[in-house]
Amino acid sequence: MAVKLNEEERESKLKPLLQEAKWSMVDGRDAIKKTFTFTDFNQAWGWMNRVALAGEKIDHHPEWFNVYNRVEVTWSTHDCSGLSLKDIKMATFCDNTCKTS
Amino acid sequence: MAVKLNEEERESKLKPLLQEAKWSMVDGRDAIKKTFTFTDFNQAWGWMNRVALAGEKIDHHPEWFNVYNRVEVTWSTHDCSGLSLKDIKMATFCDNTCKTS
Repeated sequence: MAVKLNEEERESKLKPLLQEAKWSMVDGRDAIKKTFTFTDFNQAWGWMNRVALAGEKIDHHPEWFNVYNRVEVTWSTHDCSGLSLKDIKMATFCDNTCKTS
Repeated sequence: MAVKLNEEERESKLKPLLQEAKWSMVDGRDAIKKTFTFTDFNQAWGWMNRVALAGEKIDHHPEWFNVYNRVEVTWSTHDCSGLSLKDIKMATFCDNTCKTS
């Protein structure tokens, strides 16, 4: 069962995503979001597949909207109704596997 | 270049999607939407990949939102700012390739 990030984790792991990696908090939720833009649908879909496989592997799935080359991704953890270490892991995976942001 | 559905096409092709296949018009847009629900993410993502490949083949891409086993799909055609025969084709493909709706 995933648990919510504690204060130390928010400072050391969440803050860098918000301050350096352009993730932002979702209004009214303990969740983070970011929009990724690619060259075309081929590139966007290839990346989404990588994220889908990585998420499935740890049983953690995104909320995401896609139209053509744009993907809006939100991470939050249903189990604990907020951000957990799984969200940090997947957000970092998103950043590490995309070429553009 | 895709062109908007004419009156005859709306009657013969769009109407059945709205009246029988549970698609609905998007408020304020000449676009159709439908929510598909699957057993789990594996099933949802498998289906999304089939739709992605079919769309890419005819260079026509959905607007869609996914969270876990649920996929909300919208079809409209950017070129003509409204519904074209490509949307009818892809909506029908969506219906023909899903097990649940």
